[in-house]
Amino acid sequence: MALKLGLVGIGKIARDQHIPALVADPRFELVACASRNARVEGVASFASVEAMLAEMPALDAISICTPPNAHFEAALAALRAGKHVMLEKPPAATTRQIALLQAEAARHGRTLFQTWHSRFGAGVDAARDWLRGRTLTGGTITWKEDVYEWHPGQQWIWDAGGLGVFDPGINALSVLTEVLAEEAFVHKAVLEFPENQQAPIAAHLDLRTEAGVTVKAEFDFRQKGEQIWDVELVTTTGRLRLSQGGGVLEIDGRPVAADAALAGEYPRLYARFAELCAAGQSEVDWRPFQLVADAFLIGERRTVAPHQV
Amino acid sequence: MALKLGLVGIGKIARDQHIPALVADPRFELVACASRNARVEGVASFASVEAMLAEMPALDAISICTPPNAHFEAALAALRAGKHVMLEKPPAATTRQIALLQAEAARHGRTLFQTWHSRFGAGVDAARDWLRGRTLTGGTITWKEDVYEWHPGQQWIWDAGGLGVFDPGINALSVLTEVLAEEAFVHKAVLEFPENQQAPIAAHLDLRTEAGVTVKAEFDFRQKGEQIWDVELVTTTGRLRLSQGGGVLEIDGRPVAADAALAGEYPRLYARFAELCAAGQSEVDWRPFQLVADAFLIGERRTVAPHQV
Repeated sequence: MALKLGLVGIGKIARDQHIPALVADPRFELVACASRNARVEGVASFASVEAMLAEMPALDAISICTPPNAHFEAALAALRAGKHVMLEKPPAATTRQIALLQAEAARHGRTLFQTWHSRFGAGVDAARDWLRGRTLTGGTITWKEDVYEWHPGQQWIWDAGGLGVFDPGINALSVLTEVLAEEAFVHKAVLEFPENQQAPIAAHLDLRTEAGVTVKAEFDFRQKGEQIWDVELVTTTGRLRLSQGGGVLEIDGRPVAADAALAGEYPRLYARFAELCAAGQSEVDWRPFQLVADAFLIGERRTVAPHQV
Repeated sequence: MALKLGLVGIGKIARDQHIPALVADPRFELVACASRNARVEGVASFASVEAMLAEMPALDAISICTPPNAHFEAALAALRAGKHVMLEKPPAATTRQIALLQAEAARHGRTLFQTWHSRFGAGVDAARDWLRGRTLTGGTITWKEDVYEWHPGQQWIWDAGGLGVFDPGINALSVLTEVLAEEAFVHKAVLEFPENQQAPIAAHLDLRTEAGVTVKAEFDFRQKGEQIWDVELVTTTGRLRLSQGGGVLEIDGRPVAADAALAGEYPRLYARFAELCAAGQSEVDWRPFQLVADAFLIGERRTVAPHQV
């Protein structure tokens, strides 16, 4: 029987990705949504997650795609009401909140799926498999996009806790931590803050692996023209390039054809959520978020030109 | 038989605390030290941890009290050489580094003791026991000290990654996470950065528990006169005040006498390290460090007057 799902936070990502994926997936029935302002045609609409939980006791699961500072309370309320929870990235406001949600899910025997959609890009699994057994010697992450195109009018991304350019950059870190055979940490960071905003518009990271290999990451929100979401990793026996945010894989300059049957990122996310709910398991990996927190922790702060949202 | 120990980083904390505690403890024999500049009378002195490990294969354990940005490499080298490792706070440069060290210690079957010395203050155990079963309604942490008195000439504390006022403030967070019966996270943070430094001179935090109770924390490096390291917690059935950094406990305004036989913080730290080595166990708790990283992650940054080191 389909899981009755309530969607929390009806913004751009909900309409672009979550709703189409849910409508197409017979394992879910989208029966409710919660949003301060927006409504979804054909499903019960509530002004808050609390109202939704109170009035829709038959809900099995909640998927949360509000701005991240509202994730924790919504997820906590849903878990305490006995619902399975799926969290859009970035997972919460702080890394400690994830630990608390993880414990709460375990306490209630419910699934917490803390998602990283870029890990479901068509090239990621093959990249991870190819890297196993190879020796990394270096790498470069280039994640440069035009914030006006991808986050139009979103002030929250610039407020304290909004992550700024790490909102997309965390996708790169989620791909890196998925494909690398070894662990990495932030060795050095420089963050560029617009003088009128609380979140960085650009970041330059030196990530280092346990073996001492450096992967450089360049995140920039000021990109015009070509938009770039690339991870390039060099080994002693070849190099790989994941582009389009994990969607396209090249090895030694030759394209690797993705499985034509492979669904898109969000259909795969919901398929995984259905599996986890059925198995009574959670899936949580805060490493990408910790890398971001660590970059803020040790990052040199530079002030740059003001940014108008 | 006494554990042969090498001390890494011979600065103020080594001379004030580590060496006296080690000299007094028959479970340890201080046989070597590593420091770029300093030497310790009567023990073999090396310019680096690598040299010490190479030339003193009989060492059983290493205790690291360098500035935190040197902890990771020293600890990794020592664990890989099969030594037990004790880490002074703050534990490393980043939270991810702790996870990597924890995995490395497990891989080699060695003890990693990631210490929080303030948890060994004379009032802390009694405070934790008193709080069990009580219902918290609020609290205030006041951690205000004169940086010129406690960190004279230490530029590293002001550099990116040096933590600034969180270097003492993390002690308060280590006490809070030890005594509270429930988990807390950073709900709101304001960080004051001197305009000529990369680390904050003051911080104002709202910590929140799972039950939604707020504990306010005020950290300040500009304190003149009385130095204050207090944690006050209010419950529905009384209030407690830990002062002097965890050393003195009052309940409902009445002093609670500490066990007169109780040793000081650092003697107790080394006693615990000896127990852990004997038991083949590690003890790691990165929650205080995560709270600091989370404060940097979501903190509103304010620029204040320059600070001359």
